[in-house]
Amino acid sequence: MEKISVSKSFDGEQSVYKHSSDALSCEMRFAVFTPPIARHGPGPYPTLFWLSGLTCTEENFIAKAGAQRAAAELGLAIIAPDTSPRGEDTPDLDPKTYDFGKGAGFYLDATEAPWSKNYRMRSYIVDELPALAARHLPADPERTGVFGHSMGGHGALTIHLSHPDKFRTCSAFAPIVAPMSVPWGEKAFSLYLGADRTKWADYDATRLLESRGASAAHILIDQGTADQFLSEQLRPELFERAAKKAGQKLTLNMREGYDHSYYFIASFMEDHLRWHAAMLAR
Amino acid sequence: MEKISVSKSFDGEQSVYKHSSDALSCEMRFAVFTPPIARHGPGPYPTLFWLSGLTCTEENFIAKAGAQRAAAELGLAIIAPDTSPRGEDTPDLDPKTYDFGKGAGFYLDATEAPWSKNYRMRSYIVDELPALAARHLPADPERTGVFGHSMGGHGALTIHLSHPDKFRTCSAFAPIVAPMSVPWGEKAFSLYLGADRTKWADYDATRLLESRGASAAHILIDQGTADQFLSEQLRPELFERAAKKAGQKLTLNMREGYDHSYYFIASFMEDHLRWHAAMLAR
Repeated sequence: MEKISVSKSFDGEQSVYKHSSDALSCEMRFAVFTPPIARHGPGPYPTLFWLSGLTCTEENFIAKAGAQRAAAELGLAIIAPDTSPRGEDTPDLDPKTYDFGKGAGFYLDATEAPWSKNYRMRSYIVDELPALAARHLPADPERTGVFGHSMGGHGALTIHLSHPDKFRTCSAFAPIVAPMSVPWGEKAFSLYLGADRTKWADYDATRLLESRGASAAHILIDQGTADQFLSEQLRPELFERAAKKAGQKLTLNMREGYDHSYYFIASFMEDHLRWHAAMLAR
Repeated sequence: MEKISVSKSFDGEQSVYKHSSDALSCEMRFAVFTPPIARHGPGPYPTLFWLSGLTCTEENFIAKAGAQRAAAELGLAIIAPDTSPRGEDTPDLDPKTYDFGKGAGFYLDATEAPWSKNYRMRSYIVDELPALAARHLPADPERTGVFGHSMGGHGALTIHLSHPDKFRTCSAFAPIVAPMSVPWGEKAFSLYLGADRTKWADYDATRLLESRGASAAHILIDQGTADQFLSEQLRPELFERAAKKAGQKLTLNMREGYDHSYYFIASFMEDHLRWHAAMLAR
């Protein structure tokens, strides 16, 4: 694990690391924000994993989400990984395809060739990266949450619901909540997981609520009403309905006029960070 | 003038426009943030022009500076133009050169061929864009300020000192304060303005303080001490010395450990916006 860049940001540090990933069999980068030591001590800090959406790398969140200000105030660390395995030895469908392959790992462990060797983002996020963080970063494994955007919102919801004791808090911006029922998910799951849809359900947040029941967390979702993907790909009403049925505590804010961009994410980032900080402090 | 994108941001609007520029003889883009109407009315709003640094377009500031939150609160509009003329018909030195030509207009009116037809960013920023804004945007020409980063800090300082009644307030992040005395400026001015250095002085903030004297404004500059360009290209001490001599009100904050990046800019953006808002309210 090697630090390849660091910039002071709101008296904290915004760093990027690279390392050789066992889970993904390639070199990966991830970004880490740590809050000001002068204000919050040397840690370990309550830590959030941010999962980005389609086409993103570890760079989008740290450059565009404006999270550092509130994270510095609240004393939160934020780890933002890349969205898929990378490198020349990692297979890709077609570099022009934005919704499958590189930049589109969908936070699952692929079972189908040729994807199953590298596309194991679930294991990377749930096991490898938290272990690395606990060992080398001032990240508190007892106070860890997960949040994300779009495909990363899908990752956050499914990872939280599958591992509620490890990722205790969860929120999402414009998440894909029911991938088995929308084109992005159907395409990705068919190729990564094969034709047998019973194997898909562990990676579908709405199905997980039905099969595993509610988590103890209170989940926060913000969704823009002017989001171009709202009705075809995101469909938060499906998750809302399942949450009601399962007794899952959920706040779903429909934000009038907001789209799918980082301008939307930045507008509500502080709310989400305060939400996680308050829940992780308990 | 055509709006080519708009995203809701902190209850305001982050838009990008394109138009055919008379000053630059090419099509140009610029970004505009307008604050929430529900909170601040329909305008016209006090308006800041943000001038970006080398290699930037109209996009960098709006994606990375995190200015919208405080601008929305304070009721400020922010106009962020591109940093040079663009398009296939605009000459360029070499696309690999980052410090001259496209992306490096240096906020001056070139006099030398082949640059003098298109490279007239000074006229564009001082005349064409404010006229366009006054006609088509809720921008108040009586309450206008200018700020910028690096090459754009040079632009902000020189434009304010040359037109203190039009651009009443001025601040800068890591500005080039004495381009005649540093490599970036010497290269750009030689090519854009020719060998006669007496013609360069109108575009050198430190020289302008000597020749025209102080403005009525209180200028704010933030500069990171870990900025890789500090001692060779930026040299704020030269401006500080000239300001003292000229009686120019100046606050120069040397920020321990901060570099030249947008992480530095974002960290102090709110301070700058509050500074301008307070001065423009008088």
